[in-house]
Amino acid sequence: MVTDVRLPAWNHGPTRTAVLDFVDAADALPVESRVAVFDNDGTLWCEKPNYPQLMFMLDELRRAAASDPTLAERLEYRVLLDNDVHAQAEIGLERIAFALIELCSGIGPEEFGDRVAAFFARHRHQERGVSYLDLRYQPMLELIDELRAHDFDVFIVTGGGAEFVRSISQMFYGVTPDHVVGSLVGYEFTRDSKGRPTLLRTTELFGEVNEGAPKVANIQLQLGRRPIFAAGNSPGDAEMLEYALATGTPSMALLVNHDDAEREYAYAGRAGSFETDAPFEETASSLGITVASMRSDWATIFPVGPI
Amino acid sequence: MVTDVRLPAWNHGPTRTAVLDFVDAADALPVESRVAVFDNDGTLWCEKPNYPQLMFMLDELRRAAASDPTLAERLEYRVLLDNDVHAQAEIGLERIAFALIELCSGIGPEEFGDRVAAFFARHRHQERGVSYLDLRYQPMLELIDELRAHDFDVFIVTGGGAEFVRSISQMFYGVTPDHVVGSLVGYEFTRDSKGRPTLLRTTELFGEVNEGAPKVANIQLQLGRRPIFAAGNSPGDAEMLEYALATGTPSMALLVNHDDAEREYAYAGRAGSFETDAPFEETASSLGITVASMRSDWATIFPVGPI
Repeated sequence: MVTDVRLPAWNHGPTRTAVLDFVDAADALPVESRVAVFDNDGTLWCEKPNYPQLMFMLDELRRAAASDPTLAERLEYRVLLDNDVHAQAEIGLERIAFALIELCSGIGPEEFGDRVAAFFARHRHQERGVSYLDLRYQPMLELIDELRAHDFDVFIVTGGGAEFVRSISQMFYGVTPDHVVGSLVGYEFTRDSKGRPTLLRTTELFGEVNEGAPKVANIQLQLGRRPIFAAGNSPGDAEMLEYALATGTPSMALLVNHDDAEREYAYAGRAGSFETDAPFEETASSLGITVASMRSDWATIFPVGPI
Repeated sequence: MVTDVRLPAWNHGPTRTAVLDFVDAADALPVESRVAVFDNDGTLWCEKPNYPQLMFMLDELRRAAASDPTLAERLEYRVLLDNDVHAQAEIGLERIAFALIELCSGIGPEEFGDRVAAFFARHRHQERGVSYLDLRYQPMLELIDELRAHDFDVFIVTGGGAEFVRSISQMFYGVTPDHVVGSLVGYEFTRDSKGRPTLLRTTELFGEVNEGAPKVANIQLQLGRRPIFAAGNSPGDAEMLEYALATGTPSMALLVNHDDAEREYAYAGRAGSFETDAPFEETASSLGITVASMRSDWATIFPVGPI
């Protein structure tokens, strides 16, 4: 049967069946309504023990500090260079993140993209020693292919930097940069020495960090299309998942549950906006969200097999 | 020869040849770099004697005032309902436009889109008596088709409202809503009576009006891709046209010159950011921009032939 070759990295069971039932039901919808959105960190690729974007920024910091040692005098940078986890927690990730944004200010989008691409070409995961290409989730790559085979338009809606993800979205997921919605750093319009229009990265956010309710607003602001499928893995995806489900039938929201300490990592998302301390994975089912267990629903996790 | 069927609404001559030479040269480029952006008002459809979006907002105002006569007491609305052109000029289009935005505040994107679609279904051009579908420019529709035949990704970058243009971009141009960049009204995230996530239009702009330098910044912010082809018709497109040209060869910037009083309208764009009083059409050539004369370069202007 043809069905047997669909989603081979997914174990047979209710989750895989629910996914395939949704995809097949969407065949009855107008093509323009077949819109799917995926979170990135922890949904399409591994986000532990650190976000890939943080590793990129650390790499930028180390390279910058090598040629300008005075950078290490700045508190937000020093705690990173010293790997002082306690001091990092005290300062807070937000303040550190904004300080790191400054490292790439004043450069154009092309140079930023080149730096990100070069980072991924040389960087290896700190615990697994492999490229991040090998830390994409094979079941999700198959799901993207399956959705596209049913004429879905597939977008990434990330809490991370839009330009960061755009730099690798084509290579990693076959997703063009215009199909990526994320947190945005503003640009200054200027002219170069030859009078040509040029954009330079600033240190300011444009709009809000793309997490939670802003994910929903930014989907409308930047795409103007409403998803009928959404996948995520954390409370920051909650509103987006609910938003997809609220379109009626057929629609689907999928939550990746990181419950596989052996093959990946085990960690739960807190309920966030749901005003309860229960793990988001527990709250999700009551909202109609389909929870995919990495341990039991995924036969394979990474493209090159078990690591 | 196959060449004879390309761009049939364009007269043979240097402009048509330049367009075809560019399209053919782009065949040598990676597909992902084949990005084309088009302004909308005056570039893809007729913007005279009034912007279609202003006609829509006037229509909204008349319908709202019919059920709530107190609206006519507000100065910005009264000068419109009275067709008091002098008072309109005194108040200024910007103040009037912001007042009109309020008419659609508090509704969701779907209802807004439905209102726009319904308007275009019933509205007829005030002087020509035809649907706006018949006031698209046939040569530009052919150019979009030609670019797509050469694997270009085609985007609209409008000074008008993004959501307004998105409501008709698929029907008018085969352009999906996510391929439209424009001026944005913000959304408030809320929940409906059943607790479902909902977006409601506010009265605030999100970011800047999408004209001039902001067009360039918004192309990067929302699309993350750099155009090698740009078409426009006014000083508000100048930076975008220069930006496309600055990518090197092959690249092309096309300026539609409204010099055909007989078949369309004759009006010139002022030079805007170029700090000269010369019409933009004169300044353009010195910047390497190709000027398309509606009068001499276009054999046909509208899809249904001369009106």
